[in-house]
Amino acid sequence: MAFSSYYPQLVSQRRELHQWPEPGWTEFTTTYYLAKKLKEWGYDVLLGTKVVNPDAVLGRSEKDVEAGLQAARDHHVPEEFLKATEGYTGAVGIFDSGRPGPTLAMRFDIDCIPVQETTDAAHIPTKEGFRSKHDGYMHACGHDCHMSIGLTVAKFIVDHKDELCGRIKIVFQPAEEGVRGANAVAESGVLDDVDYFVGSHIGMVAKYGEVVIDPWGFLCTTKFDVTYTGKPAHAGIEPNAGRNALAAACSATLQLLGIPRHGSGMTRVNVGMLNAGKGRNVIPPNATMVMEVRGETAEINDYMAEQAMAIIKGNAVSYGVDYDVRKMGAACDMKNDPDMIDALREVAKGIPEIKTITEKANFGGSEDASLLARRVKDHGGKVAFFVNGADREAGHHQFNFDVNEEALDTGFKMFAGMVKKICGRK
Amino acid sequence: MAFSSYYPQLVSQRRELHQWPEPGWTEFTTTYYLAKKLKEWGYDVLLGTKVVNPDAVLGRSEKDVEAGLQAARDHHVPEEFLKATEGYTGAVGIFDSGRPGPTLAMRFDIDCIPVQETTDAAHIPTKEGFRSKHDGYMHACGHDCHMSIGLTVAKFIVDHKDELCGRIKIVFQPAEEGVRGANAVAESGVLDDVDYFVGSHIGMVAKYGEVVIDPWGFLCTTKFDVTYTGKPAHAGIEPNAGRNALAAACSATLQLLGIPRHGSGMTRVNVGMLNAGKGRNVIPPNATMVMEVRGETAEINDYMAEQAMAIIKGNAVSYGVDYDVRKMGAACDMKNDPDMIDALREVAKGIPEIKTITEKANFGGSEDASLLARRVKDHGGKVAFFVNGADREAGHHQFNFDVNEEALDTGFKMFAGMVKKICGRK
Amino acid sequence: MAFSSYYPQLVSQRRELHQWPEPGWTEFTTTYYLAKKLKEWGYDVLLGTKVVNPDAVLGRSEKDVEAGLQAARDHHVPEEFLKATEGYTGAVGIFDSGRPGPTLAMRFDIDCIPVQETTDAAHIPTKEGFRSKHDGYMHACGHDCHMSIGLTVAKFIVDHKDELCGRIKIVFQPAEEGVRGANAVAESGVLDDVDYFVGSHIGMVAKYGEVVIDPWGFLCTTKFDVTYTGKPAHAGIEPNAGRNALAAACSATLQLLGIPRHGSGMTRVNVGMLNAGKGRNVIPPNATMVMEVRGETAEINDYMAEQAMAIIKGNAVSYGVDYDVRKMGAACDMKNDPDMIDALREVAKGIPEIKTITEKANFGGSEDASLLARRVKDHGGKVAFFVNGADREAGHHQFNFDVNEEALDTGFKMFAGMVKKICGRK
Amino acid sequence: MAFSSYYPQLVSQRRELHQWPEPGWTEFTTTYYLAKKLKEWGYDVLLGTKVVNPDAVLGRSEKDVEAGLQAARDHHVPEEFLKATEGYTGAVGIFDSGRPGPTLAMRFDIDCIPVQETTDAAHIPTKEGFRSKHDGYMHACGHDCHMSIGLTVAKFIVDHKDELCGRIKIVFQPAEEGVRGANAVAESGVLDDVDYFVGSHIGMVAKYGEVVIDPWGFLCTTKFDVTYTGKPAHAGIEPNAGRNALAAACSATLQLLGIPRHGSGMTRVNVGMLNAGKGRNVIPPNATMVMEVRGETAEINDYMAEQAMAIIKGNAVSYGVDYDVRKMGAACDMKNDPDMIDALREVAKGIPEIKTITEKANFGGSEDASLLARRVKDHGGKVAFFVNGADREAGHHQFNFDVNEEALDTGFKMFAGMVKKICGRK
Repeated sequence: MAFSSYYPQLVSQRRELHQWPEPGWTEFTTTYYLAKKLKEWGYDVLLGTKVVNPDAVLGRSEKDVEAGLQAARDHHVPEEFLKATEGYTGAVGIFDSGRPGPTLAMRFDIDCIPVQETTDAAHIPTKEGFRSKHDGYMHACGHDCHMSIGLTVAKFIVDHKDELCGRIKIVFQPAEEGVRGANAVAESGVLDDVDYFVGSHIGMVAKYGEVVIDPWGFLCTTKFDVTYTGKPAHAGIEPNAGRNALAAACSATLQLLGIPRHGSGMTRVNVGMLNAGKGRNVIPPNATMVMEVRGETAEINDYMAEQAMAIIKGNAVSYGVDYDVRKMGAACDMKNDPDMIDALREVAKGIPEIKTITEKANFGGSEDASLLARRVKDHGGKVAFFVNGADREAGHHQFNFDVNEEALDTGFKMFAGMVKKICGRK
Repeated sequence: MAFSSYYPQLVSQRRELHQWPEPGWTEFTTTYYLAKKLKEWGYDVLLGTKVVNPDAVLGRSEKDVEAGLQAARDHHVPEEFLKATEGYTGAVGIFDSGRPGPTLAMRFDIDCIPVQETTDAAHIPTKEGFRSKHDGYMHACGHDCHMSIGLTVAKFIVDHKDELCGRIKIVFQPAEEGVRGANAVAESGVLDDVDYFVGSHIGMVAKYGEVVIDPWGFLCTTKFDVTYTGKPAHAGIEPNAGRNALAAACSATLQLLGIPRHGSGMTRVNVGMLNAGKGRNVIPPNATMVMEVRGETAEINDYMAEQAMAIIKGNAVSYGVDYDVRKMGAACDMKNDPDMIDALREVAKGIPEIKTITEKANFGGSEDASLLARRVKDHGGKVAFFVNGADREAGHHQFNFDVNEEALDTGFKMFAGMVKKICGRK
Repeated sequence: MAFSSYYPQLVSQRRELHQWPEPGWTEFTTTYYLAKKLKEWGYDVLLGTKVVNPDAVLGRSEKDVEAGLQAARDHHVPEEFLKATEGYTGAVGIFDSGRPGPTLAMRFDIDCIPVQETTDAAHIPTKEGFRSKHDGYMHACGHDCHMSIGLTVAKFIVDHKDELCGRIKIVFQPAEEGVRGANAVAESGVLDDVDYFVGSHIGMVAKYGEVVIDPWGFLCTTKFDVTYTGKPAHAGIEPNAGRNALAAACSATLQLLGIPRHGSGMTRVNVGMLNAGKGRNVIPPNATMVMEVRGETAEINDYMAEQAMAIIKGNAVSYGVDYDVRKMGAACDMKNDPDMIDALREVAKGIPEIKTITEKANFGGSEDASLLARRVKDHGGKVAFFVNGADREAGHHQFNFDVNEEALDTGFKMFAGMVKKICGRK
Repeated sequence: MAFSSYYPQLVSQRRELHQWPEPGWTEFTTTYYLAKKLKEWGYDVLLGTKVVNPDAVLGRSEKDVEAGLQAARDHHVPEEFLKATEGYTGAVGIFDSGRPGPTLAMRFDIDCIPVQETTDAAHIPTKEGFRSKHDGYMHACGHDCHMSIGLTVAKFIVDHKDELCGRIKIVFQPAEEGVRGANAVAESGVLDDVDYFVGSHIGMVAKYGEVVIDPWGFLCTTKFDVTYTGKPAHAGIEPNAGRNALAAACSATLQLLGIPRHGSGMTRVNVGMLNAGKGRNVIPPNATMVMEVRGETAEINDYMAEQAMAIIKGNAVSYGVDYDVRKMGAACDMKNDPDMIDALREVAKGIPEIKTITEKANFGGSEDASLLARRVKDHGGKVAFFVNGADREAGHHQFNFDVNEEALDTGFKMFAGMVKKICGRK
């Protein structure tokens, strides 16, 4: 095995980032770490509303943002930097070769999962001393790896700037979990001049030594938070005076689970959380449902969302309660362009550690890189998303998730190869 | 035991009427029988829209009416009479003493139950040869007895006309079952000059030899038929294209049963029948619910009906189906006036066969005589409703229901006594 | 266009059969028509329990069978024949060439749909005078065409007997609608010596001039009738004394519609009909649900059925009612053998009227030929099922369904071609 | 107005107790306060398992108990005292006159409500500086008043010991809210020698200057916490692998609300809180329902509880989840003995501030004093419960609840009067 000369950087960056995981829309310390390096390496760095359209932000909690800002201050992130973020995390580093050529964007997601990392001594981050220091949070989906690869590719680009043409955008996207962040990044317009878009995920369906160059099964999805507001009443004395928000939510849940299957493709619906009520003997005046729908295509997903809206409204009518629906996240389907699949295949063939090039595999989940890809496609660009195989200790999102760090190198080589293929001087 | 001289008439009329039971709004043969006798005895007889307000008719099926008319023709009821009914059953016989005095109305209901009478030889109508000749129908709630008592009182009145003052209305009301008929009779205005109103039911909570002179627990009720109309679709090929009326009805049913109890009094709700769907593999485009609500007071019953309407609408919204609600019946609560209770008590005391005078007992059901009583009270009249005890072979509405015919005589004596008390010449 | 010399026979048989459609398990007149011709042409004809295993019969109503027998008597079907059926419809005609060779079975289904055929003059069966004479029933799924093709192939076989080897079974299967009949035919063992199995459906996804030689999407399905039995009570007086079967069915329905989607493939569930209750003011003691589940594979269908059984039981527990589940029909998935697809392709290529040979198309429904095919495959046989395109006046199962009769000829030629290919003397 | 000489004590004690409200089973600081005074005044004080039977404890959380113990330590409650409680709050002070006579028990409840007290300056506890110092908790149901009255009566007793005979038990009962505490106090046996039992509530349906001496409408009730435990699964990838505890709880809730009304009397059911689920895209493996049933009589309440148990189990079957039911509280109905009503009436007549003696009024809620009363009745004792009217600033349990302190004096006088009447030397 011949690791690239960038391997030590890949590992050390990843281990640093692993120690301070931050949930979506609160990645201020993380964004500072990334932006600082990009600037050192000569990148023009965009922050705040230049990369995030506030009107299109989904699933962002002001309270969490405050906590993230406070943590950043505790980590001595300069106040000036925090001001520049305008309260929105994420950053885009721009490299301009000064030579005519295409614009390439590469996307790396930066948020973590609300999971307490295991203290099991066999877990490498624990054993090697880089376990999460942020209690209750963990990079349990490999975004620490994604960022380290992204930074290393950024360094590779400046190291090889004389061999490149066109412009390259390194996109560090916030809040991928819950498919919340991409919508606002897409709507910021920061990708509107992009000709080629490349994204990736580590692990998933592929083992170390394998890449999937045409994954399918990116489900379209919409995430909602639904609130019912009724009226409390003493459940013994005058139950009739109440308006039962809990009952409305229960009935809505049963109806939602029963939205008819679609003849044209796969559907999903889940009410993942339901919290309602004030006390045992009070007709419950409040209920919140945390839910999502999915569909194999945008049309099917829209069908699911429309049915859900009718049901949510119908139960408000039945139970005489008010309701409020907030869109919390969104992703769509994604299809690699044939040219880009060819490019990925060629790059992969040139990497000795990659033993298996899988054409098609079911991604089996949602990815909001799809919204960035759609934005690029909408103005004529081409897109590719690949799975960078890795050996996993456990399933994604679990408290003992980990990958073999050699996979950082294959990921880096794939992106670096795409850089050379798309922006290499001819 | 000393039966009145009218006893043979009571028994023979009851046995004749028992043989041709007719369901609500189809009692043409029955009405003819009643009207013919009233006319013979010199009564002025009102028919059709003079006793029934067509705009206020509930739960009447044109198809059933046609069948009733056909049966009447088969029984040689004159075409001229049928024309006079204008298609509406029921009759009011008016006796005018020619002397000043109060107007008294007495109400007797005339319809039957859709039950097949038993052929068990121990069942007296079978044994004595007066079992129902109308297949699938039976006087299983004693309305045959009520009519015979009413007719006999009518005969008693003309037999004693010189001893009476004021005017007397013998009201033969159609369609009591399902509390359908009284609403239209009340709205016809035929009772608007009535000073005193007396009604009664045979059997129920009281045994032979007992009368209840102040029954309570007449539940307010509203009866509805609800229809949901959706859209069929092949359940395998494109379930999403359907609009599921059956599911809407199922969800509505669960929500209806869960209408909150009322702090101020008793409530009831029932979906008694649900029929839906076209075939196993078709998304069901149709559903019909036969339902009712009840409440201890008019206000509570209204609360139940309003909640029901919201639920019925809400599920139409949830499932994207149309709905239609038809009011099929109504009754309200009823409270005897103290003077009238006193009058009933005195009359009862004078009847040797009556051994027990019960002041209060729970009627435990709905009676649409309540709507007639309310109409009379609304213009200042006074009302009384008593239970005429009888020994029953079985529960009301059952295929082997029967009462001891001696109870015809006590019932007759109670009404005749009230006639003398209210319209007797002083 | 050059129709085969059998075209007049195809049309006249189809028009005769179209006039007396019979629903599943009651096709006595139809079976007699088919068996009589087979015998005339020298076939050995199996009837009754030789072709139907009574223990494996699904969805057969004794009452309907009685009506079918009576109709057959009215049509002068000999009593001796009816006795030979043992009460079970369907027939298998066996041709033995006397020469060694493979055994080929061809399956044709014989039952109709409970639909009233249109009297619209534009509808060809009406215009041409061969509209259904069986009120409320219609060959609205083309089984009249299937039978005529089957009979004509039978005639073709005896006309060409010297050119054939091996044995051929013409299988006229009862009760395909509701996927009821094939299970008992498979379990009779009549196909246990079959080497090759061929079936077909007319119309569906293909137009006239097209055949589909490798249709997919035959859904596995199980059909159930579910009965809940509770306890009646007066809904006003003591609702607590009842056991509400209607409510149990409503709750079960909502839960059934919400059975979780399956990650490995398509699922379906439908409660197509629900009938419950005795009267408006009676707690409903009875409810019947007519339902089905489907799955992309047998495993997924089993998952659906198991979930459904748990739900049906769970609601019996919740509502304190008894329940009964009767399996009413079943079908599985079906996959043509590659050799057989090749054979179908070659035969189709030789038929000038066939302009389009479609390899794959979604059948989009269930077919109980699949159970016969599975039986044949289980002992090593090979199977093929093709769609014989036709121009349809309306959708299958609709009151104005009809196909262009030219499609009878293409269907016949496909089967005749398969006979020659499989049983032709080399 | 002539307040008793005890009025300053009544007010000062109440204001002290108001400042440190403690929720049920955590009243260690409160119990210490009460026990200390009782001991000072010469009472024999029973604590721990002498007044609470651990096997009969309902609705006690070890975690809350730990917090209560810690708070007591922070308030310098001696460790020795805490040890004596054995972890169970509540105390009974016993006064023995040394003279033969009856045993009288008076019960005062000591716990608070989890409500944040208002900071509104118009709220007297805020204005006068005795607002709750326990964040999130408040004496919002007047138990601070009850305790002060109880203590003052205790002082009155020792001040008048020479005028008394028999024995007197001052029962300070923990955890009345949620009707949790009385069950274990009753089961401790501490009331098993009691001849007369007196309890009271301040405020409620009566204004200052009024007492209700024969309140009715104490509903029987049972409180349950229900937990469903299923299995998580990714809602997109394999929803079929999950077991949906949230859905089970939703379906159970709808079924619970629909438990049939009871013909013999009032019923109630409420699911007051429902919390379920782990995340938006996870099939929810957990759900907790906080619920209660009520009935006009013990028999009706048992009916409701049985129906609820069937429903809870049925949904576990339907959804393939496990369930656990914990009884959290209980109360029964209560009926004052006629002699005791007479005694209350006489005492009230002797108190000038009491202007209105109301015989009957609907208590309209549950009170676990009923369980103590039942225990006393079960061995032949007599019981009384009266409502001590007060002018309320707001409804019970609300953040701005308060009563006029003059009502402390009328309450004290009522109890003191009963002491003299029952245990006064003749």
